[in-house]
Amino acid sequence: MSQQNGFHVAVVGATGAVGQQMIQTLIKENFPIRKLTLLSSARSAGKKIDVNGQDYTVEEAKPESFEGVEIALFSAGGSVSKELGPEAVKRGAIVVDNTSAFRMDENTPLVVPEVNEADLHNQNGIIANPNCSTIQMVVALEPIHQQFGLKKVIVSTYQAVSGSGAAAVEELMEQTQAILNGDVYEPKILPVKSDKNHYQIAFNAIPQIDKFQENGYTFEEMKMINETKKIMHLPELQVSATCVRLPVAVGHSESVYFEIESDDVSANDIKALLKDAPGVILQDDPENQLYPMPANCVGKNDVFVGRIRRDIDEPRGFHMWVVSDNLLKGAAWNSVQIAESLVKLGIVK
Amino acid sequence: MSQQNGFHVAVVGATGAVGQQMIQTLIKENFPIRKLTLLSSARSAGKKIDVNGQDYTVEEAKPESFEGVEIALFSAGGSVSKELGPEAVKRGAIVVDNTSAFRMDENTPLVVPEVNEADLHNQNGIIANPNCSTIQMVVALEPIHQQFGLKKVIVSTYQAVSGSGAAAVEELMEQTQAILNGDVYEPKILPVKSDKNHYQIAFNAIPQIDKFQENGYTFEEMKMINETKKIMHLPELQVSATCVRLPVAVGHSESVYFEIESDDVSANDIKALLKDAPGVILQDDPENQLYPMPANCVGKNDVFVGRIRRDIDEPRGFHMWVVSDNLLKGAAWNSVQIAESLVKLGIVK
Repeated sequence: MSQQNGFHVAVVGATGAVGQQMIQTLIKENFPIRKLTLLSSARSAGKKIDVNGQDYTVEEAKPESFEGVEIALFSAGGSVSKELGPEAVKRGAIVVDNTSAFRMDENTPLVVPEVNEADLHNQNGIIANPNCSTIQMVVALEPIHQQFGLKKVIVSTYQAVSGSGAAAVEELMEQTQAILNGDVYEPKILPVKSDKNHYQIAFNAIPQIDKFQENGYTFEEMKMINETKKIMHLPELQVSATCVRLPVAVGHSESVYFEIESDDVSANDIKALLKDAPGVILQDDPENQLYPMPANCVGKNDVFVGRIRRDIDEPRGFHMWVVSDNLLKGAAWNSVQIAESLVKLGIVK
Repeated sequence: MSQQNGFHVAVVGATGAVGQQMIQTLIKENFPIRKLTLLSSARSAGKKIDVNGQDYTVEEAKPESFEGVEIALFSAGGSVSKELGPEAVKRGAIVVDNTSAFRMDENTPLVVPEVNEADLHNQNGIIANPNCSTIQMVVALEPIHQQFGLKKVIVSTYQAVSGSGAAAVEELMEQTQAILNGDVYEPKILPVKSDKNHYQIAFNAIPQIDKFQENGYTFEEMKMINETKKIMHLPELQVSATCVRLPVAVGHSESVYFEIESDDVSANDIKALLKDAPGVILQDDPENQLYPMPANCVGKNDVFVGRIRRDIDEPRGFHMWVVSDNLLKGAAWNSVQIAESLVKLGIVK
């Protein structure tokens, strides 16, 4: 059992925004590491990364890179996961994949440990980490569903640009400075780098995240809809989403309307429930203007919930405001948490 | 009939963000003006304002200021409207009030000309201009209600700081520059100047606009709920709102979910309807990434609507994205439009 000395962990996409957070989170959370392998595309290979005072050289990710690796955290794009994920599994690693490549695959569990940790028992070597905006929402919804039964969800998101990567954050900052200076700045990345048109994000709001699907929803919206049903094991749950990109660097916010099955539940009942829910920090005191905000959640693992109140007309309807660091609980921390669960459940040993 | 030479118009709050827009809009729309009186608090009195190349001196607003005034546009805060609105009416003026002072008064019509122009016939000299975020929503909802019957509305807003006045825009810009410089900047105005705590708005989202009410909703949210029912003459309409302030200078956006009474209506039916609706510009072509954004609506009188699609689960449910310049259709332009309607209907003559 290698656990005595820790595990051989690989991070694929080590130079990206999420990969960087994965490395920092592994260290911060004292994940038991015997050996750390940092992998990337050929383009970024050779870069040096400081990990806890020690220099690591990033290597190009190839099938052979996974020899001896026990846990591989992937965050280098869907095509890399599709190509190299199975290669890592073939060599004995368990893969925690942060891309959308395997999320809706019926043989791949899609896991948020606070919600469906037990799904980790049914896998073929690949675990999918859900979309950032989905994760924070289901952490808040699961205890409500467990207690009162969940029927319907309508969410409008307020998402940070770091969800589009480090270059998008740079674009936001440079564009903001250009506009303050009265200069012209040509948008090149947002809303979607590979899409046809690019729009100003500074001092603006863009109602497009990821590409449009045939049904008029964006892929991000369909991810929230489909992933929520899968993670919560509620194929019949009604979910709709509108996803919007904001001039915020880090921290996704969500305005969530939900309807429950139970009668006679008050907003205070929901607050009492979420106060003790795993992974949730309740910040809900309107009188003292206490509510979650993205600027306050940066660098924290938790999901912050506030503004809980009953719908004006629908007695089983409620509204809440859910905020979390999209790079941590929305990505790196949830991946590391899955790795911790795999160890705790004896799946990796 | 004074209309031959135009009217004696007063603008109260002439030095404020909305007052400035009112003056510009009167000129731009060629409103027939015989005499223009610019009024303000004692603090701003004496300031000079250039109107179409002519210098006007702002005078302190007093009861006597309204002698001879035929149309008075108020935007100087609720207490000024409460004190001086009736004084203007007493002297023969008709008041178009942009504050919340009289909006829910049952003897005061609350008017969006595209929706309920006929309500102008039933007034006692004061017409209320609705809240900015309400106006743009009802312009988009009214044609849908007329055609298909409206049952339920759930809105999440993405509101610009200019709704809090010119000083709030200055705070956003200075704070943004400070953060880009790595400097510290103490928030002093947003979310609500007169409330206890002030929070960073730059690169953030604040789920509070106006003060909290006892039911956990903010006053802005209750304005959207109550004003929508009153303007649309639908006391039974189900409306809920979550209002959020963004780091955007001008232009409110809204993610609107609505349920209609009719069956077998498609998203294309809604689009066809809104394409020809008064005051609406349809911008809805996902394939070409065409949708409304605040950065593109600045300086325009219209309400822009896009992202129209049917709810995934509810056949009578739809989503849309509504954007407008909150200083124009949300305030100054709607006020001037009301004045135009008053002339057209012969109420002011």
